[in-house]
Amino acid sequence: MEIKFKPIGIIHSPYTKLHDMPIQPSAASGVKGRVEVDEKYLPALSDLEGFSHIYLLYHFHLAKSYQLKVIPFLDDQERGLFATRAPKRPNSIGLSVVKLIRIEGHILHVENIDIINGTPLLDIKPYIREMEAAKDIHIGWLEKHASKIDSQLSDKRFR
Amino acid sequence: MEIKFKPIGIIHSPYTKLHDMPIQPSAASGVKGRVEVDEKYLPALSDLEGFSHIYLLYHFHLAKSYQLKVIPFLDDQERGLFATRAPKRPNSIGLSVVKLIRIEGHILHVENIDIINGTPLLDIKPYIREMEAAKDIHIGWLEKHASKIDSQLSDKRFR
Repeated sequence: MEIKFKPIGIIHSPYTKLHDMPIQPSAASGVKGRVEVDEKYLPALSDLEGFSHIYLLYHFHLAKSYQLKVIPFLDDQERGLFATRAPKRPNSIGLSVVKLIRIEGHILHVENIDIINGTPLLDIKPYIREMEAAKDIHIGWLEKHASKIDSQLSDKRFR
Repeated sequence: MEIKFKPIGIIHSPYTKLHDMPIQPSAASGVKGRVEVDEKYLPALSDLEGFSHIYLLYHFHLAKSYQLKVIPFLDDQERGLFATRAPKRPNSIGLSVVKLIRIEGHILHVENIDIINGTPLLDIKPYIREMEAAKDIHIGWLEKHASKIDSQLSDKRFR
């Protein structure tokens, strides 16, 4: 069974190399990007501007293979792939929450972008405070590295 | 340009009809489900159990078409599709944050599931407090319906 998707647009960012990138949107604070949505979807962008944050779903188009265990950027030990955000995955779908600054026609101006320039966009969803009431969130192996999430940059391991 | 994905597993839930379902995980509090990951990915599940919440990315496999403007469950007015979580989208990728209760082999036991039984799984990502420090989150047209997000059920409009 195969599922086929087509890009609905393209993501522009200051990042043109896979290394020295922020590894999460929280580490890309203030970094500006543009999401260029295909013009045919213009009506689907109505009412989006009222949302301060949006999810971008995109294709990690540079990821050509994957391994079931990886050493993530924040650790020096192998971890199960699904317990990481590594880009090389069986289905290489990326997920970022970015700040929506303004919309000009079919262009979304966003901030806190941790996505490489030229990335194909798959979907846009409004961020609706999913976990607002959630208490007791645990983040497993990442817990002891949590303070580094906002400063750690990528290196060359997932090229 | 076409992007091809293959399911990595299947999501089991108590919901077998597209109507009378919770419309967000927050409305499915306590609802139990099972995520059956293909056994070949077993090593990729290592270290996941330390996370209290995970993102499930999946294919809205029952969605066969879409419209650029929809009347969402929580409103009586047409809204731009990308300003909603409606399942019928150009790329019908679903996104839910669920609570991870425990892992038995290749089976994840989860709670707060708002996904229909038999849904093809595309990816699993750890939830890492994306928006913990975010202040000033706005949710546009949803703001005035926010109190209903946890109680509103789906109806037949997206069949």
